[in-house]
Amino acid sequence: MAKILVCYYSRTGNTEKMAKAIGQAAGEVPGAEVDVLPVGKVGAGDLREYDAIAMGSPTYYGSMAAELKTLIDESVAIHGQLEGKVGGAFSSSANVGGGNETTVMDILKALLIHGMVIPGMARGDHYGPVAIGEPDDRATAQCNPIG
Amino acid sequence: MAKILVCYYSRTGNTEKMAKAIGQAAGEVPGAEVDVLPVGKVGAGDLREYDAIAMGSPTYYGSMAAELKTLIDESVAIHGQLEGKVGGAFSSSANVGGGNETTVMDILKALLIHGMVIPGMARGDHYGPVAIGEPDDRATAQCNPIG
Amino acid sequence: MAKILVCYYSRTGNTEKMAKAIGQAAGEVPGAEVDVLPVGKVGAGDLREYDAIAMGSPTYYGSMAAELKTLIDESVAIHGQLEGKVGGAFSSSANVGGGNETTVMDILKALLIHGMVIPGMARGDHYGPVAIGEPDDRATAQCNPIG
Amino acid sequence: MAKILVCYYSRTGNTEKMAKAIGQAAGEVPGAEVDVLPVGKVGAGDLREYDAIAMGSPTYYGSMAAELKTLIDESVAIHGQLEGKVGGAFSSSANVGGGNETTVMDILKALLIHGMVIPGMARGDHYGPVAIGEPDDRATAQCNPIG
Repeated sequence: MAKILVCYYSRTGNTEKMAKAIGQAAGEVPGAEVDVLPVGKVGAGDLREYDAIAMGSPTYYGSMAAELKTLIDESVAIHGQLEGKVGGAFSSSANVGGGNETTVMDILKALLIHGMVIPGMARGDHYGPVAIGEPDDRATAQCNPIG
Repeated sequence: MAKILVCYYSRTGNTEKMAKAIGQAAGEVPGAEVDVLPVGKVGAGDLREYDAIAMGSPTYYGSMAAELKTLIDESVAIHGQLEGKVGGAFSSSANVGGGNETTVMDILKALLIHGMVIPGMARGDHYGPVAIGEPDDRATAQCNPIG
Repeated sequence: MAKILVCYYSRTGNTEKMAKAIGQAAGEVPGAEVDVLPVGKVGAGDLREYDAIAMGSPTYYGSMAAELKTLIDESVAIHGQLEGKVGGAFSSSANVGGGNETTVMDILKALLIHGMVIPGMARGDHYGPVAIGEPDDRATAQCNPIG
Repeated sequence: MAKILVCYYSRTGNTEKMAKAIGQAAGEVPGAEVDVLPVGKVGAGDLREYDAIAMGSPTYYGSMAAELKTLIDESVAIHGQLEGKVGGAFSSSANVGGGNETTVMDILKALLIHGMVIPGMARGDHYGPVAIGEPDDRATAQCNPIG
């Protein structure tokens, strides 16, 4: 059995919709147990309980929201204990060219520094799923790479 | 009088269309003299003749095409002589989330290392104009920030 | 007269030392008035009062500390009002290859999105001053590019 | 048996030394067969023969040399066939803060887009080994993370 966490911050609900779509897709993996939780309900220590962690945030000034960065900064307390876990990232932004790619990459950088393993995708959104505003059919499909 | 260079690499013609739109917009600046040239017609030494330089490339594997990178690598011969010039970047990619933002940022990194001055934009494409495939009205408008 | 702000977050004091060195160098510019302030003493609205703003942070998981990101996120309230101001960034990290470059770039991305103008440097630390641990002579000299 | 490729571009020999140190470390993995080859001796199609690929380059203007980017651009001919392979990156730069981190990240972006799997490191150089000039003991040790 694989425990999967989809952890997100969302104000408008756009990133939350992506999180739920990713969680639903992950839930279809045989043996997977999935939690979809906002950052406020995840402590840094909780991250150790999962085999795979996807983190998502709206794009604020080209990077993740401070709320998600706070969780990441606090995770220094368990540094080394996430090694080898699978990681991924996703983001919604107001516009095309609005910083969603750099946000996804900034989250991935943090997960790499934790020693996590990042699987790329040869098809679809290159670094991780992105949405322009409310996730449309394209963005929602990206949230389900195995769908 | 300000001399402006829009230098691009393009295979499909999408990035070339962006270059021409940027060149046209720049040409409307009073006193501006604008050259829009493919990388093959620009030597590293030529870059010294301009007051402002915009570089554009399609997005290949999340960064600029090797053809543009070759010009940038060769510009080490004139390193220091572009200091204080104004720089900008643009890119077209096949898809949303397809790496155009990281391509633009990679070009900007090179221009910063040359000591050039990069003006950001509070409105519109955050790091520089991007197009998804052939430039649509949105992308073309981004190429004319003063229009 | 130019008003310059050096705004930083620091826990160990390393980034603070860089901020003070930058502030001292800036103070030698004729007509400059310089404030060197920790993020806790700077409100987003205060940023409008300056002609040039340098922001610095230790490197936490490859990017700026959440404390600085919080200030940047809050600055959305004055979005558009920083256009044309000069921006810069600096960071200290524990190790070489420890994420200081990506931290500096992440701050610069935010300043570009504010429409600020980023001057690169053809000599020295490519994106902005970095220190490995406590700033040594090399790092301190980088904080004074005109020294 | 695992086939591992360490592919590099080097002019001064610094990156080549890193490649050889990585190749030596990889060769100590039981069952590993390692090739350490300059980009000129690797065709895009050859990449398919390996289970793990590390790519290295000196830092030129904040990113990989055009010679390595050319190989990556040409690999579009086999796009999709590298999915699931393990990837890594390394770089040497002239100076601290000289762009080696952004070079490593730019290579990793390309490998992610190929659908490769990137293992991070919780200890040591955060995105991949970096050297300042000729690899010193610190940098050489980074090239042997399992050493």
